[in-house]
Amino acid sequence: MKIYLAGPDVFLPDAIEIGRQKVAICGRYGLTGLYPLDNAIDLTAPDAARQIFCGNEAMMDAADAIIANLTPFRGAGADPGTVYELGYMAGRRKLCLAYSNDGAAYADRLGRFMEVTSEDGRLVDAQGLTVEDFGHVDNLMMIHALELHGCPLVTPAAMPIDVWHDLAAFETCVRMAAARLIAT
Amino acid sequence: MKIYLAGPDVFLPDAIEIGRQKVAICGRYGLTGLYPLDNAIDLTAPDAARQIFCGNEAMMDAADAIIANLTPFRGAGADPGTVYELGYMAGRRKLCLAYSNDGAAYADRLGRFMEVTSEDGRLVDAQGLTVEDFGHVDNLMMIHALELHGCPLVTPAAMPIDVWHDLAAFETCVRMAAARLIAT
Repeated sequence: MKIYLAGPDVFLPDAIEIGRQKVAICGRYGLTGLYPLDNAIDLTAPDAARQIFCGNEAMMDAADAIIANLTPFRGAGADPGTVYELGYMAGRRKLCLAYSNDGAAYADRLGRFMEVTSEDGRLVDAQGLTVEDFGHVDNLMMIHALELHGCPLVTPAAMPIDVWHDLAAFETCVRMAAARLIAT
Repeated sequence: MKIYLAGPDVFLPDAIEIGRQKVAICGRYGLTGLYPLDNAIDLTAPDAARQIFCGNEAMMDAADAIIANLTPFRGAGADPGTVYELGYMAGRRKLCLAYSNDGAAYADRLGRFMEVTSEDGRLVDAQGLTVEDFGHVDNLMMIHALELHGCPLVTPAAMPIDVWHDLAAFETCVRMAAARLIAT
């Protein structure tokens, strides 16, 4: 069975090495990891971005499941590119799994980036927009999609020192995916 | 034909009024707008977040198309909850449209939030992660999903003074959706 490995990992300086490690962990559980950077793309081509999109979409269509890295990216929430892929796989009725290496509640985490205040019983951000306050790690669409279309979001008991390289929560996802996909 | 109206609009102080205006614009083009806040949810229920998710998913499943508001939200990129919904609708093979009221390139916009530098020919953010630099407004997954599963992202020629209430780019999306959905 094939698992699409989504995440901002592709933006890391050692993106290829992280992909290699993730694919190896999948292999230990009898699963085949599909990592976006394994698509051969000519980055100097004028349509390189479109080629990357088409390569990723073809990988997702070929996969039985997704494991998305929802660790907060350049702010309080997950990487939108990764979240797009999670939504796409939910829409394709594939098995959805994800992890975040920051298990804090979204509303608490947002306070690290901007002032969050209470107004008439609701939390608001610096622009006056309501802050979701259900105690979830991120937006309820991702949290409940995982619960209803796969497995609940995995978070570590304590935030790892290196959130971009610690793969313990990822491995928990792989173990759950194997139990669901290989059991039958 | 029904259009799901996705966006962080639901977090605005006047979220209900914005939804009313969007639905009215859809109506002028012969389309039925489905706005998340039109689902009756008991926000005091212990499973309110799950009820919101299920209501939104049922609305998406009932819709023929999505118009997503990808205007940058609490940072350089689009609202992840909205992006999840765009991905879901692409996965369901529905018609995908979106707008952003900030037409700047992502790499340029990110510079307003953190230091972006050039290293060995690639742009990197303050954490050393690669910054996508294809000249697109946001992550290539959303940009090319729109191009290949619907209509290219709509942006205004100049950023409106009030990015959360200006509905000109939204109306352009409605016009394009009507041309695609009602023509036949």
